Amino acid sequence: MVSAIRVAPTAATRAINLLRTVQYTHPPTCPCHSNPSHHHHHQNESSSLIHHARRTLTTPIDPSRQKEYAFEMASSNIRFGPGCTKEVGMDMKNLGAKKVMVVTDANVAKLDAMKQTIEGLEKEGIAYIVYDKTRVEPKESSVKDAISFSKAHDPDAFLAVGGGSVIDTTKLMNLYTCNPDASFLDFVNAPLGKGLPITSSLRPLIAIPTTAGTGSETTGTAIFDMESKRAKTGIAHRSLRPTLGICDPLNTRTMPSAVHASSGLDVLCHALESWTAIPYYERMPRPTNPISRPAYQGANPISDIFSLQALRSTAKYLPRAVKDPDDHEAQEQMLLAATLAGVGFGNAGVHLCHAMSYPISGQNPARYTQPGYVVPQGQPLIPHGVSVAVTAPSVFRFTGPSNPDRHLAAAEALGVDISQVKKEDAGHVLADRLARFISDLGGQPKGLKDLGFDKTHVEELVQGTLPQKRVLVLAPNLSGDEDVQREKDQLRGLFEDALEF
Amino acid sequence: MVSAIRVAPTAATRAINLLRTVQYTHPPTCPCHSNPSHHHHHQNESSSLIHHARRTLTTPIDPSRQKEYAFEMASSNIRFGPGCTKEVGMDMKNLGAKKVMVVTDANVAKLDAMKQTIEGLEKEGIAYIVYDKTRVEPKESSVKDAISFSKAHDPDAFLAVGGGSVIDTTKLMNLYTCNPDASFLDFVNAPLGKGLPITSSLRPLIAIPTTAGTGSETTGTAIFDMESKRAKTGIAHRSLRPTLGICDPLNTRTMPSAVHASSGLDVLCHALESWTAIPYYERMPRPTNPISRPAYQGANPISDIFSLQALRSTAKYLPRAVKDPDDHEAQEQMLLAATLAGVGFGNAGVHLCHAMSYPISGQNPARYTQPGYVVPQGQPLIPHGVSVAVTAPSVFRFTGPSNPDRHLAAAEALGVDISQVKKEDAGHVLADRLARFISDLGGQPKGLKDLGFDKTHVEELVQGTLPQKRVLVLAPNLSGDEDVQREKDQLRGLFEDALEF
Repeated sequence: MVSAIRVAPTAATRAINLLRTVQYTHPPTCPCHSNPSHHHHHQNESSSLIHHARRTLTTPIDPSRQKEYAFEMASSNIRFGPGCTKEVGMDMKNLGAKKVMVVTDANVAKLDAMKQTIEGLEKEGIAYIVYDKTRVEPKESSVKDAISFSKAHDPDAFLAVGGGSVIDTTKLMNLYTCNPDASFLDFVNAPLGKGLPITSSLRPLIAIPTTAGTGSETTGTAIFDMESKRAKTGIAHRSLRPTLGICDPLNTRTMPSAVHASSGLDVLCHALESWTAIPYYERMPRPTNPISRPAYQGANPISDIFSLQALRSTAKYLPRAVKDPDDHEAQEQMLLAATLAGVGFGNAGVHLCHAMSYPISGQNPARYTQPGYVVPQGQPLIPHGVSVAVTAPSVFRFTGPSNPDRHLAAAEALGVDISQVKKEDAGHVLADRLARFISDLGGQPKGLKDLGFDKTHVEELVQGTLPQKRVLVLAPNLSGDEDVQREKDQLRGLFEDALEF
Repeated sequence: MVSAIRVAPTAATRAINLLRTVQYTHPPTCPCHSNPSHHHHHQNESSSLIHHARRTLTTPIDPSRQKEYAFEMASSNIRFGPGCTKEVGMDMKNLGAKKVMVVTDANVAKLDAMKQTIEGLEKEGIAYIVYDKTRVEPKESSVKDAISFSKAHDPDAFLAVGGGSVIDTTKLMNLYTCNPDASFLDFVNAPLGKGLPITSSLRPLIAIPTTAGTGSETTGTAIFDMESKRAKTGIAHRSLRPTLGICDPLNTRTMPSAVHASSGLDVLCHALESWTAIPYYERMPRPTNPISRPAYQGANPISDIFSLQALRSTAKYLPRAVKDPDDHEAQEQMLLAATLAGVGFGNAGVHLCHAMSYPISGQNPARYTQPGYVVPQGQPLIPHGVSVAVTAPSVFRFTGPSNPDRHLAAAEALGVDISQVKKEDAGHVLADRLARFISDLGGQPKGLKDLGFDKTHVEELVQGTLPQKRVLVLAPNLSGDEDVQREKDQLRGLFEDALEF
C-alpha cells in the first residue's frame, strides 16, 4: 500500500529546471519596472500587484541587481476581546512555561492590565519575575540593561505588558537570551549593525499592548536609539515576532487623550506608508536564501488589505477616540486598527515619515515636550507618533507622482470626494487632507517649526535620516545609492517643506 | 538599575478583578443579540463587529450557555511568487530538518512542482522519503495508512506537495506521528470523535499547493471520510496549521479547466460562508481555556477582510481562469484568492454549503463523475467544489434574512447593482446571481438533479448533514439543538430547493 521512492533528477528534469530558473530569475526590462518611481499602472489594481516576470532568455546578470519575485506574509496570532488579558495564565500553561519573565514599565506596572496578567499567572501557579525598568523610546543602554537582567534569570517564556517600547525591549531580551554568545551588533540592522539573520528559534513571547499604536504585538521589529551613533535603528526579522498578541480593549482605556492622539497618528502613518511603499517586486536585491527576505519587503497584495482597512478605520475612529475618553467603541476600533496596520507594515514596511522621524525625536533642539504627556524626570519628549505625522503632508505631496491612484485611494479613505480630482494633483490632495486631519485632532504641531526646528536644523536632520537605509529603500520617488547627492537634496526639500503645513 | 518585584494581589485588586469579571463574562441580553438570526444591524458596519458586552451586574448563569467574547486570528506564514517552490530546500535546512517526509499523490508526483521540490532538497543535501499514495478525498483507511508509513519513518519535518487532500493527509501524519500513543478518535471532531485539543507541538510542515482551492496551506483543518459512519469529518485545531505555505503560481498551471472550475467554486463558498457565518460573539459556549477556542469561531473583523477580498477576486478572475488556460494572471489571482479565503474561513468557519456537501459527494447515488475529471480506477467523483456550490443558491436564499446587508454586499462583490434592491430581497438577489455565475462557468450541474439526486434521496442527505455540528452551529437562521425537528425541516427544505436552480 505504501511506497518510498527517491527521485533523482534526470537530464530532462534538469533542462526543464534550468529553463524555469532562467525564465523567472531575471529582472523585467519593461521600462515601467526599471524605476521605482514609475510603477503607477502596476499598482492601480490588485491584478497588477502580482509581478509578471518577462519570459525571454537573456544573458545572466549580477545577482545583487536582481529584483524580488516573491513576498512572504507572517503575523503573530492575534486574540482580540474585552477582558481576554486574564487568559494569559492559561496560555502560558498551555505553552508549558514554568518561569515567565514579565516585562513592563513603571507606569504600566500600576495599571489593571498588569494586575490581570499577574493574577492570570498566579491562578495557574506559574512562577514569574517582573522587570519594570523598560523606558519609553528605548536606548541601547536601557536595552542592554534589560538583556542582562533576562540572561541572569534565563526564563523559559516572555510576557510583555505595555506599549511599543516595552514589547520591543522584550523581543530583544528574548533574542539575546537565546543567543547568549552573540555580540549586540550582530543582529542590528545594517549599516549600523551586521544585520545577520536570526537562525535560532526563540522562546515563546506573548505581548499585551496597552496602547493602540505600534502594532508591535504582530511584528518582528524592535526599534531603539543608538546613542553612540545618534541614530535610531533596530532589529527586524520574522523570528522576533511574538507568539501571540493579546489585544484587550480594556487595557487601552487608561491612555490619556494625548496618547490616543500620538499613537493613533503612528497607526495613520503605518497604514499610509505601507500602502504607498514601492511594490515588493521592485525591491533589490532578491535574497539568495529565503531567510534573508526582509520583513519590510514593499507593498504586496496581502499587506495592502490590512493597510487600507487600517487607514479607513483610523479616519473614522481616531478623531472620536481623541475627543471623547468615554467613546469605548472608537477606542476598541483604534486598537484593532493598530493591530491591522501592524500586520500591514510588518510585512510591507514603512518609508519616509518613519525614516525622518528618528532624527526629529532624537535631536529635539528646543527640548519640546508634547502637551498632555507626563514625562519622567522632566525629560523632553516628542512622542513617536507626533514625530512621524509632522512630515506626513510633505512626504505624501512628494510621493504622489509615484502612484497617483494609491494616493487618491488614501485620500478617499480619509473622506475626500476624489471624483473630480486630477491624477497630477493626487499628492497635493492627500497632503492637504492630512494637514487638516492632524490639525483637527487638536494639540498637534502644524509642522516642524511648532516643535522648535528651523532652517538651520535641516542639514542635521538630513544627516540623521540617511542611515535609515532599510526603510529609505522602500520610499517611492526617492533617489537611491546611485545618486546620493540627489537623495540628500530630496530629503532637504522634504524637511523644509515640513517646517509648516 | 533593575528590579524584581512579585506582585501579590491585594484585597482591593481582587475586588476590581471581580467587578471586571462580572462585567465582561455575561452574555448580552439586548434582543438583537439573543438570536443569531437577528443580528443584522450589528454586522452592517465593521464598527459593530466588536461586541459590546452589557455592563450590568446580573446573577451568574450556566457557563455552557455563555456566548463568546473574543476571537483569535492565526495563519501559516504564506510565501507567494512564481518559481518560489525551489526555495523549499533552503527552508528545510533553515528549519534544521535532517529527514523530510515528502507527501504527494500519484498524479502530482509526475509534475514539475514535485521535481522542483526534490531538486530543492537534494541541492541542500537533505535526506527525504516520498509517500505518494494519498488519495483524492481521503478516507479513514487511506489516512491511517499514511500515518503508519509516517510513524515507521519518524521524519523530523513534513512537506506536502499537492491539493487539499494531500495537505490534509500530511497534517494528520504529523499529528499522529507526534502523538504516537493517541487513539485515532482522540482528536477527531465531536460528536464522531472525542475532539480533544492538541497540546503537543507538532513538527515543521511546509505545504506547497498545486490547486487553487482548499486554502489548506493556511488552515488548521484536515477533512476525511469516515466510511464506518458514512460521514465526512475531520480534525480542526490551530496547531495543525502548516509552518509555511509556499504558493507558487507556476504549480497551478497544470490544473485542467474542470479543476480550475471546481476548486474555484470551493473558494467562492469559503468566502461566502465565512462572510455570512454567525458573528463570533454569538457562538456558544465560551471556552473556559483559550486552547479550546475553535478555529471555526464565526465571522470576525479580521476574517471579514480576507473573505470579502477573496470573494471580489473570485468574481473577477474565476471565469477567466476557467475559460482560458493561458490566462496566467487570472490563475495567479485565483491562487492568491484561495489563500486569502483560507485565512478567512480558517478563522471564521464555513456553514451550510460545506455541511450539506459531505453527504452529496459521499452518497452520489447515480455514480456521477464530473466531466473533465480523470478518476483512477473509474471511481465516480463529485468534486468537492461542485458538491459545495450546487446548494449555494438555495443556502444564501435561506440565510439572506439573517443579515441582508452582508448578503447585498456579497451580491455587489459579484457584480450586482444593489442600489435599488430592497433588504428583504437580499437573499434572493444573491441566490440568483450565484446561479448565473455558476452556470456561466460552463459544465456545472444546475442543481442536485443534474448530479442524479431526486426527492427520494433528500431524507438520507438530511441525515448525512446532521452530524456536521461543528459547521452547522455557525449557520445563521438555522435552528439548533433546541429544536432538532425544525432543523431537520429546514435542511429538508434546503435540499429540495437545491434540486434545480
